Amino acid sequence: MPRPIPHIVWKKDRLRLLDQRLLPRRIVYVDCRTASEVARAIKDMVLRGAPLIGCSAAFGMALAARRRSARALEEAGRLLVKSRPTAVNLAHAVGAMRSAAETVEPARLPAVLARAAEGYYRWDLESNRRMAGLGARLLRKCSRVVTHCNAGALATSGIGTALGVVAEAFRQGRISHVYADETRPYLQGSRLTLWELMQEGIPCTLITDSMAAHLMKISRFDAVIVGADRIAANGDVCNKIGTYGLAIVARHHGVPFYAVAPTTTIDPGTPDGSRIPIEERSPAEVLEISGIPIAPRGARARHFAFDVTPARLVTAIVTEGGIVRPVCASGIKRLLAARPCPKT
Amino acid sequence: MPRPIPHIVWKKDRLRLLDQRLLPRRIVYVDCRTASEVARAIKDMVLRGAPLIGCSAAFGMALAARRRSARALEEAGRLLVKSRPTAVNLAHAVGAMRSAAETVEPARLPAVLARAAEGYYRWDLESNRRMAGLGARLLRKCSRVVTHCNAGALATSGIGTALGVVAEAFRQGRISHVYADETRPYLQGSRLTLWELMQEGIPCTLITDSMAAHLMKISRFDAVIVGADRIAANGDVCNKIGTYGLAIVARHHGVPFYAVAPTTTIDPGTPDGSRIPIEERSPAEVLEISGIPIAPRGARARHFAFDVTPARLVTAIVTEGGIVRPVCASGIKRLLAARPCPKT
Repeated sequence: MPRPIPHIVWKKDRLRLLDQRLLPRRIVYVDCRTASEVARAIKDMVLRGAPLIGCSAAFGMALAARRRSARALEEAGRLLVKSRPTAVNLAHAVGAMRSAAETVEPARLPAVLARAAEGYYRWDLESNRRMAGLGARLLRKCSRVVTHCNAGALATSGIGTALGVVAEAFRQGRISHVYADETRPYLQGSRLTLWELMQEGIPCTLITDSMAAHLMKISRFDAVIVGADRIAANGDVCNKIGTYGLAIVARHHGVPFYAVAPTTTIDPGTPDGSRIPIEERSPAEVLEISGIPIAPRGARARHFAFDVTPARLVTAIVTEGGIVRPVCASGIKRLLAARPCPKT
Repeated sequence: MPRPIPHIVWKKDRLRLLDQRLLPRRIVYVDCRTASEVARAIKDMVLRGAPLIGCSAAFGMALAARRRSARALEEAGRLLVKSRPTAVNLAHAVGAMRSAAETVEPARLPAVLARAAEGYYRWDLESNRRMAGLGARLLRKCSRVVTHCNAGALATSGIGTALGVVAEAFRQGRISHVYADETRPYLQGSRLTLWELMQEGIPCTLITDSMAAHLMKISRFDAVIVGADRIAANGDVCNKIGTYGLAIVARHHGVPFYAVAPTTTIDPGTPDGSRIPIEERSPAEVLEISGIPIAPRGARARHFAFDVTPARLVTAIVTEGGIVRPVCASGIKRLLAARPCPKT
């Protein structure tokens, strides 16, 4: 399903990004002409979502390649990988672009890397479609689901991971209602997920992150569906802060918990969740909302951007290559061995 | 410990209330000259906190008594009880004032009810002190605790329920750090709890409601301490929305969960939590923060103000009359039989 408002546009000499910090109130684009500007946009959260920042990093490498220097490309890669520490898609995309650049003459770097980045982007788009089709089958008719953060079109190149599944399941009559956690502190749920669901005409209700447990107690829920920023080799799922608590609450109520992510999000180099670096962002993002202070002057706050849900709380991981039950670790190994994503 | 800023002041012909909606940014008082004005202030959340709205209802009855009419008193009682549906303290306070008014000549109603309301307030103050002393003993040296919403001085007549325990435990060297959930949507944690803890010099850190699970996984926590709005006869604890999820998460990590509330919060007429009416407030309070929209125009939201934590997840309930383990229901019966609170 094409998005009415494009959120990532490749213009050969620049990457145009929809500023997601201002949604849904304002539609503003940021143009990035260098890899360093792409890295800055990722760091400042102009865009977010593990698959999308992966695609943007690929285009960032294509911009760097315009300097026709292997060294400039190498520097750009380092800068892009460290722009945010948790999502492994950044490292994957940069690795794929580095592979594409190998043995390429400097003069041909711009054309080769632009083509490789476009391919990376198309691969993500196609993987979204596959996940949507596979994941929808997990849901029975008229399911009521909870989602957290935004794992929609805005978080990817295309129709989204978790919300891609939701949209396809809705089309098939398998979803009757979506409850979206607002997802403090950045409010990706209220600002982005509601916006996407409403545009697609999917019945949806906003709740605070603290309401999911109460709702699961008083009414039937069929699934929690979320995206992921990094999945460890053992199936531990790192995702937006609040996902872990939601997974505990879902297990307590016997509600299945599904993570939807392309295999580029699985990191075979990270044995388990304890090794995933959890980004800590500025406390100001907790102490203020839309620039308005909500706590006393001088108050201290922590702002963990992600948490890790252990594999034992994850019912299934939906990838473009298939569905795995992470309690069965060999499934992830088989999936990784077969993964059709761009090679790094 | 007296509050530097009084938040409830009885002036005989009026009740002066600190407008908690504007804290910590502005100090504004609201004067109520009638029971109806008190009921409106409770409904609009000028003040909140089960024990405090109980005390205010008592003073509201004293204001109604100035009309020297049993019928006016009866009407005021009905209005005050229905100002908010969940906290049973309202019904208890109104019941106590009705008892005090029995067989009193109309001419003497103002004096008798004023004295009774002052007594009700002093009783709450004293019960706070007792709970603080009893509850502090549950904590070992240098405990790290999480609290939710505001169960401090601002929620009661005096030093608070959960935060009264925290302050006393801190004085005794039993608390090293308090993590306060911001408590969406009303932000009682960031606006009120942080304000109180900082004024008392207690080391504290603000987190979003969604961060407690992650923190419990990565570091040691010794207790969750919260207040309560109504406790059913079987020990089910109704408190601010988010408490139930926090209790599930605490149990998952083996962290004790304590509810601190005067026996006036225990409702022998409510057999279990499923019978407690859960107030649903305006969706606007979820769709906006400080009047600024955070969701798309036309978005739907739910706003449950409370949830119920079943007795099996509650390690202990601290009251002024003693500490009970709610899994042992007979303890609550004994406590209620002996409760020294003003009779209704």
